[in-house]
Amino acid sequence: MIKSKCNITHNSSDSTLTLLSKQTLIIYRYIDVLFMADMKIVFLGTSAAIPTQKRGLSSVVIKRAGELLIFDVGEGMQRNFLQTKLGINRKMKVFITHLHIDHCLGLLGFFQTISLLGRTKKIDIYGESRLREFINENFRIINITLSFEIAVHVIDKEGVIASEDDYQISCCRADHSVPAFSYCICEYPRPGIFNIKKATELGIPKGNLYRRLQNGEDVVVDGKLIKSNEIVGPKRKGRKIGISGDTRPSSELKNFFDSCDILVFESTYIHDYQNKAIETFHSTSAEAALLAKESNCNKLVLTHFSSRYNDPTILLDEARTIHNNVDLAEDMKTFYIPYAE
Amino acid sequence: MIKSKCNITHNSSDSTLTLLSKQTLIIYRYIDVLFMADMKIVFLGTSAAIPTQKRGLSSVVIKRAGELLIFDVGEGMQRNFLQTKLGINRKMKVFITHLHIDHCLGLLGFFQTISLLGRTKKIDIYGESRLREFINENFRIINITLSFEIAVHVIDKEGVIASEDDYQISCCRADHSVPAFSYCICEYPRPGIFNIKKATELGIPKGNLYRRLQNGEDVVVDGKLIKSNEIVGPKRKGRKIGISGDTRPSSELKNFFDSCDILVFESTYIHDYQNKAIETFHSTSAEAALLAKESNCNKLVLTHFSSRYNDPTILLDEARTIHNNVDLAEDMKTFYIPYAE
Repeated sequence: MIKSKCNITHNSSDSTLTLLSKQTLIIYRYIDVLFMADMKIVFLGTSAAIPTQKRGLSSVVIKRAGELLIFDVGEGMQRNFLQTKLGINRKMKVFITHLHIDHCLGLLGFFQTISLLGRTKKIDIYGESRLREFINENFRIINITLSFEIAVHVIDKEGVIASEDDYQISCCRADHSVPAFSYCICEYPRPGIFNIKKATELGIPKGNLYRRLQNGEDVVVDGKLIKSNEIVGPKRKGRKIGISGDTRPSSELKNFFDSCDILVFESTYIHDYQNKAIETFHSTSAEAALLAKESNCNKLVLTHFSSRYNDPTILLDEARTIHNNVDLAEDMKTFYIPYAE
Repeated sequence: MIKSKCNITHNSSDSTLTLLSKQTLIIYRYIDVLFMADMKIVFLGTSAAIPTQKRGLSSVVIKRAGELLIFDVGEGMQRNFLQTKLGINRKMKVFITHLHIDHCLGLLGFFQTISLLGRTKKIDIYGESRLREFINENFRIINITLSFEIAVHVIDKEGVIASEDDYQISCCRADHSVPAFSYCICEYPRPGIFNIKKATELGIPKGNLYRRLQNGEDVVVDGKLIKSNEIVGPKRKGRKIGISGDTRPSSELKNFFDSCDILVFESTYIHDYQNKAIETFHSTSAEAALLAKESNCNKLVLTHFSSRYNDPTILLDEARTIHNNVDLAEDMKTFYIPYAE
C-alpha cells in the first residue's frame, strides 16, 4: 500500500491530486471540526465512603465542548475543582447518582464557592426526589444565597433526562442500597466523511456549500442538483460514556452501557471481598471488568476504591485479567476521549 | 549562680541535699504530673470561605489530656483529621462558632466517617439553635445513622457551657453577620509547688501523703497535724486558650480573652482591606494583634486567611508590628501549650 501511494506521486495528474489533497485536507479538517466536540474526563474524587491522603470523595467531571457535566459532588470536591481550573462560569449540569453523604455533601460548598467567585449562569441538577429537599432545607437552615439560579430536576423514571443539540443524557436504575442511578452521555451521530476529491471533480466551490453538504443538505451547483449523500459518507457514530455510580453489576446496566467508548465503573473491592460487595451493594473490580466486557465497552476506568487499598493497582490487575483495556482513576487525572472514527 | 551551685556539691551536708534533690525531683515530678495535662492545638483548616491548594476550611482541635475539643468543622476537615491520627474514639466535644457553611458543613461527613471507623463514645456538640436543625434535618433527609450517640447543646446565653473536673469552657457573643460565638478554655488553678525539702525535714513519708498534701489535704504524721499550705505553695493558674471564630474585634471579646496564654484569632484581611473587613464582619491582622495586646494575651495565632493571600506572611508581618508574639496557623501545624509556671 505504501509503495503504491509513492508511485502515485510520480504521476503528473496524480501530483495535482496530491497537491489538492494537502489543501483540501485543511479545508476538510475545517469542515469536520465544525461537527466535532473535544471531550475529556477529569476525576476529582475517587475514594469510596472515606477519603484517604491521596483520594477525595466521589466526583467526576466530563468537559465537553466547553460544557461541564459533573457526576456526584463528594465532600471536598470544590478544592480539586478549583485546582483543575475547569472554569466556574461554564455551562454546567450536575448529576447525583444517589444521596449517600459521600456522593452529595460537597454540592452545598461547591455552589457556595462558585457563587462567591461570581458565577452567573444557571445550573441544572438531576437526582432522586430527596435531592430537592436536601438542597432546599440546607439553603433554608444555613441561609445560603447564590449569585446564580439552580434548577433541580427530579428523576422519576429511567430514560433520557437531558438533551442538547448534539447529545443526550439518559439514566438507568442502579442496584444499590438506596435509590440510585447510573448515567450515559450519548452523542448523536455526526456527519460522515466529506469526499473532497469528488467535490472538486464536480466543481463545487469551496466554502459554504461544503458546510451545507456536510450538514446533510442537498445543493444546486450550476443548475445541477448535488445530493449530500453523493459527497458525504454515512454518518459516524457519536461517543458514548457511561458512569455507574455505586451499584452491583446487573443485566439492566449491561444493556444500558452497551458499546460505551469509556465506561467509568465503581470498583470498591477486589474479588476476595465479593461477599462484602454483595452485602454493601458495591462491585468488585472483576465484576466491573466482566460487565464492561459483556457490554462491549472499549475502555473501562475503575474508580470508587475502598480506603483499605492504599495502592489500587491490585484492583487494576484483577480487572485486566478479564478486560484488555482497563485503567485506574486518580484524583486530578484526565482521560481524553477521541472519536473512534 | 551556676558557680554557687557547683560549690554546694563539695559541701558534705549539702551533698546529701543534692542527692536528696535528685531523688525528690523525680518524686516531685511524679506528684506534679498528677495535676498536669498535656495540651496542644492542631489546625486542620485555616482558610476563609474558599479553600486553597494549601488551606482547608476552618477547623481547629485542642487535644488536652487525651480529650479532643474541636472548634468548627469546615468541609473537608475529616481528611486532615484522619491524617493527624488524633484518634477517632477519644472523648470529644465539638463547638461550632456559627452556621456559615464553611464552618459547619464538614460536621456531617466527619461524623459519618468516624462512625464507619467504629467510634462508640458519645459526642457533645455546642452551637446556636439552628445547629440542631441542621444536624437533624440532614440526618433525616440523607438517612444518616451513626455508631455513637450525639448530644446537641443549644447555646442560648453567654457564660460557661461545659465543665470538667479541671477545666471549663465558656462562650461570648462574637460580632459577625449571623449569630456567632467565641470560646475560651479555662483550666482551673492547679496545686502549688511542693516543698520536698521541708517535707523531708518534717519526716513525712514519701508516697500517698505527698499526694494528699499536694491535693490540698492536711495530714497527720506521728500525731502531728501538717497543713497542706505549710508544704505546698500558692495555687498556680491554669492555662487559658481563646478561639475567636469569625468576628469583628469588640470590647466584649477584649474582656473575654483577657490574659489568654494563646489566643487564636481570625485574621481574614490585611489593614488595606479594613473596609472590606467591616463590611463582612471580619478582622484584619492589625485588629487581631491590637486586641491580643490590649487583652494581655501572651501569644497570638492568626488563622482564617482570605484565599487572596497565597502566602499569609503579609498578615503576620502586619500583626508583629503591634504584638511581639504572633504566629501563623497552617493546616496540620501543631502548637504545644506549656504551663506558664
